[in-house]
Amino acid sequence: MGNDLVAVASVRRLKERGETLATAESLTGGLLAATLVEISGVSAVYRGGLVVYATDLKHALAGVPESLLAERGPVDPDVATALAQGARVRCGADWGVATTGVAGPEPQDGKPVGLVYVAVAGPPGAEVRELRLEGDREAIRTESVTRALLLLAECLREPAASV
Amino acid sequence: MGNDLVAVASVRRLKERGETLATAESLTGGLLAATLVEISGVSAVYRGGLVVYATDLKHALAGVPESLLAERGPVDPDVATALAQGARVRCGADWGVATTGVAGPEPQDGKPVGLVYVAVAGPPGAEVRELRLEGDREAIRTESVTRALLLLAECLREPAASV
Repeated sequence: MGNDLVAVASVRRLKERGETLATAESLTGGLLAATLVEISGVSAVYRGGLVVYATDLKHALAGVPESLLAERGPVDPDVATALAQGARVRCGADWGVATTGVAGPEPQDGKPVGLVYVAVAGPPGAEVRELRLEGDREAIRTESVTRALLLLAECLREPAASV
Repeated sequence: MGNDLVAVASVRRLKERGETLATAESLTGGLLAATLVEISGVSAVYRGGLVVYATDLKHALAGVPESLLAERGPVDPDVATALAQGARVRCGADWGVATTGVAGPEPQDGKPVGLVYVAVAGPPGAEVRELRLEGDREAIRTESVTRALLLLAECLREPAASV
């Protein structure tokens, strides 16, 4: 799949920088992690991840504040950022990548199908993107993985933080 | 993919029993979780999972004893069982499914490429299977997911534990 080329470039960049990566996934449910581990030699870079499908696991596994989840629901930009940060902390990685959104077929907590947030947290801080995706459940999940990997690649284009 | 039919049957069975499921994955790196979340309506059953790619995360995220990992390495039947049990406990689910093994291309800690353990832990106890798989990295990972789902289906054929 096309995700591979972007992911391969990011894995190479992380290897050059001596930095590591972790994931926290809601709607993509492991697909982002599975895309990364397809890459030979990824074990030098990728530490692991959290599949936080149930809302309460976003708190229990990734440390997203319960108050934030109660106030905004799971499909929210600050929740996405907290998930990316949680992936870093809980998996002991330099960078965290996260996804949360509505894959469908039904809207969720008043949020429409296709509303997705992808976030990256790393040494320089965190970035989040709001997406409005179209298509069926599988298309929305696949595109969410692509966009999360593109955001990671974008964040990694900045120079490494000085130590 | 063919995994879908087996997974769909297990998800239906869990829904009938009012029971929930979690995953802990090493070599399959999220592919088992991603296969499950493809199923519409799975959110009533699947809580989430742990991608424990780095060996130390098998302890930190899934609670596999450090002494067991130090003594046997990550590719071991008791580690697989502990991962399945850890998935249940950490994700608050009735059932846990786990994978650990060598996807290749290189042997790992003296264990050959294709040696894989899949395990299921649930209310009646735990089951583990040793597999000797052939093929490339992707084939070994895909077949590991299939075998993990088949073991889950087998365990779910037994009557529900009386409460």
